[in-house]
Amino acid sequence: MQIALVQEKIVPLEKLEPAHLDRGLFFGDGVYEVIRSYNGRIFAFEEHLQRFAESLAAIQITGVDINQVRSRILKAFETAGILNAKIYFHVTRGSAIRSHTWDDSLEPNFFLTVTELEDDTRATDEGIAVSTHPDWRWKRCDIKSLNLLPNVLARRDAEQKGCDEAILVNETGLITEGAGSAFFAITGKKLQTAPLTTNILPSITRKYVIQAGKDVGLVIIEKSLTPQQAKNADELFIAVTTKDIVPVVKFDDCIIGMGKPGKYTKQIAEKFLSFTK
Amino acid sequence: MQIALVQEKIVPLEKLEPAHLDRGLFFGDGVYEVIRSYNGRIFAFEEHLQRFAESLAAIQITGVDINQVRSRILKAFETAGILNAKIYFHVTRGSAIRSHTWDDSLEPNFFLTVTELEDDTRATDEGIAVSTHPDWRWKRCDIKSLNLLPNVLARRDAEQKGCDEAILVNETGLITEGAGSAFFAITGKKLQTAPLTTNILPSITRKYVIQAGKDVGLVIIEKSLTPQQAKNADELFIAVTTKDIVPVVKFDDCIIGMGKPGKYTKQIAEKFLSFTK
Repeated sequence: MQIALVQEKIVPLEKLEPAHLDRGLFFGDGVYEVIRSYNGRIFAFEEHLQRFAESLAAIQITGVDINQVRSRILKAFETAGILNAKIYFHVTRGSAIRSHTWDDSLEPNFFLTVTELEDDTRATDEGIAVSTHPDWRWKRCDIKSLNLLPNVLARRDAEQKGCDEAILVNETGLITEGAGSAFFAITGKKLQTAPLTTNILPSITRKYVIQAGKDVGLVIIEKSLTPQQAKNADELFIAVTTKDIVPVVKFDDCIIGMGKPGKYTKQIAEKFLSFTK
Repeated sequence: MQIALVQEKIVPLEKLEPAHLDRGLFFGDGVYEVIRSYNGRIFAFEEHLQRFAESLAAIQITGVDINQVRSRILKAFETAGILNAKIYFHVTRGSAIRSHTWDDSLEPNFFLTVTELEDDTRATDEGIAVSTHPDWRWKRCDIKSLNLLPNVLARRDAEQKGCDEAILVNETGLITEGAGSAFFAITGKKLQTAPLTTNILPSITRKYVIQAGKDVGLVIIEKSLTPQQAKNADELFIAVTTKDIVPVVKFDDCIIGMGKPGKYTKQIAEKFLSFTK
């Protein structure tokens, strides 16, 4: 008799709940998005949906209606009634007996949460410390997939070093991005960040940060930095959907600027916030 | 109110089943093993348990008692009563509201299936076709983690090309291993396979294949091959727990040997089978 064990409980294979046979669990075979609302309004909603559609296509999950995804998100967001909400959602390829290959008739699984977003004003006001970690991720980081173990391990390493984010450094000694954020450096009047390749996520926040940088009079340089170049920058910050722009005041063992958020970082953060209104 | 949506159903966040909050699902934050039995006897059981313990340690999942894992596997295997069984099991870090970092008090989740293993005699007798695919996997393939999306995509690519396995080729043009198998080439009296690094899984079948190769009089070369070198080999095969040794008779567009399983491959397969008795 074919059986399963869930924790200690024996279950006939055919009686297993779909959640236990999710290809998202067996393989990380799914993609996700995180969006947020400001005072009841979801920010960059269509851009996130567009990127989600691109992630789905990149891993060949077909048969997901983006209009239905949009409706479900709006329904959940309205039901939750949270003004400053974090909305996480993923789609996996579906549930089936474990096998690398899949049957195209599989029904994708949809999952979403709407939670309260607590503004971390300490991080924004005082800045955070970051530490570097080797970039162990796969070669298609442009796809926002559920294969996030390297990110989790890097973030843990940062936490153990008393830092709030891990900055990932690839084999050639260049910074790609944060474990869960885009990474920026300001030197003089130049705002520098890694170019969009398959090695980094096409961050939506990044796009708005670049616009904000231009608006405050900075020249944008899309070129990867080394950790040493980052340490020599006037200002550093990370950008992430759920936290906007967070100044970095310590990079590994090196204090950045005067150990306080820099002036351009503040200007960019203010400009960025104006986009969300 | 914080809520979740499971497919279309709204669920209060605090009412979510643990299966929907599994870090294995959110991040692939878990490790697994696949073992098999031959005629009622589990093969290389302790070695698989040992590797499982190493995978757990590598991603810092603590608090899993390997003796308990062994007991659960034996109990399930006995309950199933399947002589030639495939036993899959994984442990994830546990279930919690999604956050990259984790709380050390999390209880790991255990999951196992025992299923019938159908011997694929066609593949063994006639050999299979394989196709190459870029190795998109992360940099710690020595850890048997649930981050398997690149493997799944490579296997799909092979399937679409009418092949049974994808052979992964890294950025430097060298073959690492198959998407779900170890890869071997025989030229003259040399049996060649990639060395054990963080780029490949320390395959247990590989270890027995190497022993079998020695036993039939071959010299073992642990050095990565290029696809061109593989095409020029006298014989090719893959090795995987659930299928033992499978001859490869076509590599991309190139027929290997005479398009039939080679003599040393057969000798190694026979020797390997003797280990399982």
